[in-house]
Amino acid sequence: MSVPYKQEEHKLTMIPGPIEFSDPVLYAMATPSQAHTSPEFVKTFQSALVNTRKLFKSTDANAQPYVISGSGTLGWDIVGANLINPGDKVLVLSTGFFSDSFAEALKVYDADVDVITAEVGDVVPFDKISEQLKSNKYAAITITHVDTSTSVVSDVEKISQIVKKESPETLIVVDGVCSIGVENLEFDKWGVDYALSASQKAIGVPAGLSISFASSRAVSKALAREKDSSFFASLKKWTPIMKAYESGKPAYFATPAVQTVTALKVSLDEILSESLDERFAKHEKVSNDFKSNLSKLGLKILPLNEKVAASGLTAVYFPDGINGNDLIAKIGSKGFTVAGGIHKALLGKYFRVGHMGVSVYDGHVEKLTKAIQDSLAELK
Amino acid sequence: MSVPYKQEEHKLTMIPGPIEFSDPVLYAMATPSQAHTSPEFVKTFQSALVNTRKLFKSTDANAQPYVISGSGTLGWDIVGANLINPGDKVLVLSTGFFSDSFAEALKVYDADVDVITAEVGDVVPFDKISEQLKSNKYAAITITHVDTSTSVVSDVEKISQIVKKESPETLIVVDGVCSIGVENLEFDKWGVDYALSASQKAIGVPAGLSISFASSRAVSKALAREKDSSFFASLKKWTPIMKAYESGKPAYFATPAVQTVTALKVSLDEILSESLDERFAKHEKVSNDFKSNLSKLGLKILPLNEKVAASGLTAVYFPDGINGNDLIAKIGSKGFTVAGGIHKALLGKYFRVGHMGVSVYDGHVEKLTKAIQDSLAELK
Repeated sequence: MSVPYKQEEHKLTMIPGPIEFSDPVLYAMATPSQAHTSPEFVKTFQSALVNTRKLFKSTDANAQPYVISGSGTLGWDIVGANLINPGDKVLVLSTGFFSDSFAEALKVYDADVDVITAEVGDVVPFDKISEQLKSNKYAAITITHVDTSTSVVSDVEKISQIVKKESPETLIVVDGVCSIGVENLEFDKWGVDYALSASQKAIGVPAGLSISFASSRAVSKALAREKDSSFFASLKKWTPIMKAYESGKPAYFATPAVQTVTALKVSLDEILSESLDERFAKHEKVSNDFKSNLSKLGLKILPLNEKVAASGLTAVYFPDGINGNDLIAKIGSKGFTVAGGIHKALLGKYFRVGHMGVSVYDGHVEKLTKAIQDSLAELK
Repeated sequence: MSVPYKQEEHKLTMIPGPIEFSDPVLYAMATPSQAHTSPEFVKTFQSALVNTRKLFKSTDANAQPYVISGSGTLGWDIVGANLINPGDKVLVLSTGFFSDSFAEALKVYDADVDVITAEVGDVVPFDKISEQLKSNKYAAITITHVDTSTSVVSDVEKISQIVKKESPETLIVVDGVCSIGVENLEFDKWGVDYALSASQKAIGVPAGLSISFASSRAVSKALAREKDSSFFASLKKWTPIMKAYESGKPAYFATPAVQTVTALKVSLDEILSESLDERFAKHEKVSNDFKSNLSKLGLKILPLNEKVAASGLTAVYFPDGINGNDLIAKIGSKGFTVAGGIHKALLGKYFRVGHMGVSVYDGHVEKLTKAIQDSLAELK
């Protein structure tokens, strides 16, 4: 897609979201005003919803995409307010900061939460999950597909198999904020019930949208709910709206973010111009090369276990003898924004690099590798 | 502000929001990626928050602006989840569709809601409000400043005086979705406790932001709350975030909509380049001229009582003998999107024109008047 807009030279944002955006996506953000009920926008929203299904690799017509103004965090409220009832037991698999926050959000909705916490930089052992599922009746289990605080990726397929075996009635909920669009998620095939994400990571769209996907089982549970626990996060409210737009008709509950939804439409067109598996493989290769190149520079990667390392970001320990803030500032002076670490057990000890979307395809990662190498040399 | 971007010719969106946007605002929507914690974005968000105070005419340092990804609707959840406790009595003054939806949202949070409903196209009589406040103890009263279903404007100043006299402990909550930036609201002076709005109406920014303002009394009540009823809509969560950004420091709860917040910063700079009172007077004059010109064309305006007619939009009955859909389509063919009516008592009987922001300053309203005149002539 060619557009009459080229973004200005700027410091490249290579944090685990927001990521860099393509020119056509940013140009879509500047779309002149359209009524949220106009035929033009209805067509745009319809395309975005149809393609959101593809992003989750779903072909089940009874599963349901939701694109709502908000942030990834709103997805946690949607789970709490629609998929669990007060008092329900929920099993949270914690691989870091974001899993813990998800647990906190669910408690607001009176979930009775059990947390199994992984070792820092590792995932929760499968046998512990089996054991826990045997010992209690859980309404839902939550898996943070990629926890951006530690950059570990959980094996959703394997965990789903365990759940299906031990407790098939338990809803499988995936926090895919930092995974959808970069890590494989076979929504239907693995039997996931609800996966939530946000626009600003591997989906490649400026922040401002909660993007999520529910199985027919999850939708039924939400629609059958006797009492709503939220108005704005109510799937009872949003389901008919999404169905209307996807079928080419406008509907109103709250005004959609016309420009950001238009950007989503454009980004999904870009993403789906190759197969998702090709996209995941490309991200994995660039991520592996980056991690390997950093190791060659003497840097230590978190997690140490390569098998659980995410493809969309890399967490790196600061090297001995170099001040972390100085390193981040030095990399910044070379034109790249990277992020500090946020896991409470490792604060000030590591930094994080996001490599998703445009940055993977346009050679940003290779340039950044050089910038890190030069920064290390200059600080030594 | 001059920017290297000029939006394409397009059908002018003259509905009661989303409104037309200026070129600099749309260009800001296409701002290249910035980290939500970057110094550039922190400065932008700081400016937006400082100027949001001015938009509400507040100088109370203990009052608090909130700019959150979401839509106007989210503001209702913020009220329900933070400013009332389950079982609290709330008095809703209903002037149409949006007031009734606000009542519905509050019930989700277990408010015990009483509604006083105005005659269609009129406001709630003051004596009824006094009477009701005398007969019950209300934790809060809600006023829909402008109900976009009927285009009537409620007298917030007078109602606030009544509340202060009859029940000073009752929190005064204003739905300002279609009033902030076009109708006068003296937040401090009138003693308002919480006013909620959205980006896409008179604030002149694409949809995607909930923009609201709380008095120190409302903030205290929210922070003292024992149990949260929402995670994403929790003022306990958002207050420290807003305070940090306003003081020039980043903070994290959920990723802000960097591009839309940048557009808000630009739009507030534009709005505050003249005095707010000048802005309100300009809107009032253009609105009065428009209404008067439509009357001259033989069209009947809702509300009939000019004193309660809003300045940001006009609701117009379809003339006898002309099919409403034909008229809207004919006006559309001349390059203007106007909106159908949504009040359930008058469905299919009227249409609505928004005249806020750019459309008021750039002569769109005059062009639309001509288009309506021509459309009527062609359909007769």
